[in-house]
Amino acid sequence: MAKIAILGYGTVGSGVAEVFWTNEKLIDERAGEEIRIKYVLDLRDFPGDRVEAVLTHDFSDIVNDPEVTVVAEVMGGMKPAYDFTKQCLMAGKSVCTSNKELVAAKGPELMRIAREHHVNYLYEASCGGGIPIIRAMNESLNADDLSEISGILNGTTNYILTEMTENGTDFGDALKRAQELGYAERNPEADVEGYDAQRKIAILSSIAYGKTVYYEDIHTEGISGVTPTDIEYAKKLKMKIRLLASSFREKGKYYAMVAPVLVEHTHPLYSVDGVFNAIFVKGNMLGDAMFYGSGAGKLPTASAVAADMIQAVKAGDTVLYSNWKEEEADLSPLDSSSRRFFVRVPVEKKEEAIRVFGMDAEQVNLEERPEETALITGIMTEQEFEQKAAKLGGILGRIRINM
Amino acid sequence: MAKIAILGYGTVGSGVAEVFWTNEKLIDERAGEEIRIKYVLDLRDFPGDRVEAVLTHDFSDIVNDPEVTVVAEVMGGMKPAYDFTKQCLMAGKSVCTSNKELVAAKGPELMRIAREHHVNYLYEASCGGGIPIIRAMNESLNADDLSEISGILNGTTNYILTEMTENGTDFGDALKRAQELGYAERNPEADVEGYDAQRKIAILSSIAYGKTVYYEDIHTEGISGVTPTDIEYAKKLKMKIRLLASSFREKGKYYAMVAPVLVEHTHPLYSVDGVFNAIFVKGNMLGDAMFYGSGAGKLPTASAVAADMIQAVKAGDTVLYSNWKEEEADLSPLDSSSRRFFVRVPVEKKEEAIRVFGMDAEQVNLEERPEETALITGIMTEQEFEQKAAKLGGILGRIRINM
Repeated sequence: MAKIAILGYGTVGSGVAEVFWTNEKLIDERAGEEIRIKYVLDLRDFPGDRVEAVLTHDFSDIVNDPEVTVVAEVMGGMKPAYDFTKQCLMAGKSVCTSNKELVAAKGPELMRIAREHHVNYLYEASCGGGIPIIRAMNESLNADDLSEISGILNGTTNYILTEMTENGTDFGDALKRAQELGYAERNPEADVEGYDAQRKIAILSSIAYGKTVYYEDIHTEGISGVTPTDIEYAKKLKMKIRLLASSFREKGKYYAMVAPVLVEHTHPLYSVDGVFNAIFVKGNMLGDAMFYGSGAGKLPTASAVAADMIQAVKAGDTVLYSNWKEEEADLSPLDSSSRRFFVRVPVEKKEEAIRVFGMDAEQVNLEERPEETALITGIMTEQEFEQKAAKLGGILGRIRINM
Repeated sequence: MAKIAILGYGTVGSGVAEVFWTNEKLIDERAGEEIRIKYVLDLRDFPGDRVEAVLTHDFSDIVNDPEVTVVAEVMGGMKPAYDFTKQCLMAGKSVCTSNKELVAAKGPELMRIAREHHVNYLYEASCGGGIPIIRAMNESLNADDLSEISGILNGTTNYILTEMTENGTDFGDALKRAQELGYAERNPEADVEGYDAQRKIAILSSIAYGKTVYYEDIHTEGISGVTPTDIEYAKKLKMKIRLLASSFREKGKYYAMVAPVLVEHTHPLYSVDGVFNAIFVKGNMLGDAMFYGSGAGKLPTASAVAADMIQAVKAGDTVLYSNWKEEEADLSPLDSSSRRFFVRVPVEKKEEAIRVFGMDAEQVNLEERPEETALITGIMTEQEFEQKAAKLGGILGRIRINM
């Protein structure tokens, strides 16, 4: 029999317990042995909850119990999660986590400590909730040279953009609705400014390229600047605006960014609406593949943590393979990456804009907006675009176009 | 250094060699050791091809060489693939395959032989080409009770249905076009009658439910009966007709089928067009997830075989986990499964049809087809539907609706 522990009985933690309790028989069968929750750590009490029988307020109960071999860290944040994780690993317990902040900041170090102690640090639930993308990248796409990984990695912003697209509401109203439905926090900054997606794409890029991508180095823009007019243009273009977290290779250089991007209707990410997440991968042999599912939520995320825990139980003291190495990836500044741009200008600047952005620019007009016009430029670098935009002056907005 | 061999230098086999040659450095790095192709078995010669240096016409070169630890069986068909696979496994070599026919017919036996000899029989490439669904089901969705797995598992039929939808062509013309483009074989029966999808869903169901589902027991209908009129109705309903290979649990009973099905525009499978494949999974914790990618083609399939081979090299004599057990699954006849149906009747039978199928049936009419009408029934069992249809008589067509 394997004994496990859960650090934190919040949303995800109570979900992990629910997964093991609800699917107990099936999990035992697949694991080849009984897996039982011995402790759940939380400072609070939960009178009347099944957790009472295994609840502890004292972390040392867990870390000092040699019977516990696998621990879920689902507290979130850096403190005390970082310290608790290290202590568990050093005590020879595998740790499985949904904590993207900790993984993005300290993943390579924690994996190294795990290796040194013949245990595993697994983090499938840190990106894309229930979508099994990390194991796929570490094990299934091993024969491929990946040149792109792009994802809708934040359900809150995708819900807001979907709401704006479907109901014509502006950002503020869509955000309010998302908050009412519990999809957005009262302080929505981490989601709407792209910080959540930034951490997730740092993790995915690190696995894809085999070197550590630090989230602080990733160019990040949120969606608070997206307007109903942008959405109208997108519709006219048969595109959708998505907050895309993306890393890609271009002419041998690696880039990563989080930004609102126009996605064409033929792209698989186009049809991913609402709170769903999806991750698109391009390999030199595989071609295009996409993984889609619930990106957040108690049970999908808990399902991923639990699957990691089952794998950790089975692995015993075998260290599972991870592509992610501690060495820092050589990320280039976005300036030299190239793409097409969608740019809005006042109608009186139309001729000049065409001269500046090039004769190959496509024009788009909205009947409801005679006072402005929009162009889709040819492919150019970020730097070229910025220079041209500065030269022209007075542009009303610009959005990158997904390549 | 690990030495591998490839049985068959056809489309997939030459692809596997290409994957190892092209991505050699990256694969060595991820595998933690050099992996080199020592033999490729084929009866033919390939003058001027790089394969010449490792080509053999004699299977015994491979099976008797103790240096070879992992073998790709990419010959297809039962003979001699079955015998060669058994011999390799018994000689202590892991076998990785794209051969869905062999896996569907003899999978459990071959996995048992592999276990007995402390090696692995891996078959990621047998379903969905490059889509890493099998490893996901065996490792990532382990904490979930799966109640449905449905997929577009055949690119040829999906191309034909997409062509019929987009260009209004009939089945025959769309098939001809698919043949011209090399998407369909000259003898297209295995694809268009659903036999290919039948084998793949048998494999996926066996993993999902942990017991063997035999493909012969799966109710299978092809797409040759789908008409342009059906497609017109589908459009009007904002649905698409897909050849869906599906297995699902309803009131504790397991069902499996392959049939053309109407898929609503809100379902993730709706937007999977052309030769792409996608597999939709529903878990009691995970919720809905979908995996999308190139379902066939030389390199995507070869990428999956190669990833299995890398995993087999790393696994050494560790037997990897598989949900699929030899015991036979208890599959119920489709009769007692329930869903809604789309049914076309001559216009003069309209009132009677509403009486027979129930007042809750929705009506659909096509302006171009005043001589007929269509109904969408409420939820009823297959048997109920058949009885009602027989009672009414003279129906012009029926298609199941995806639930």
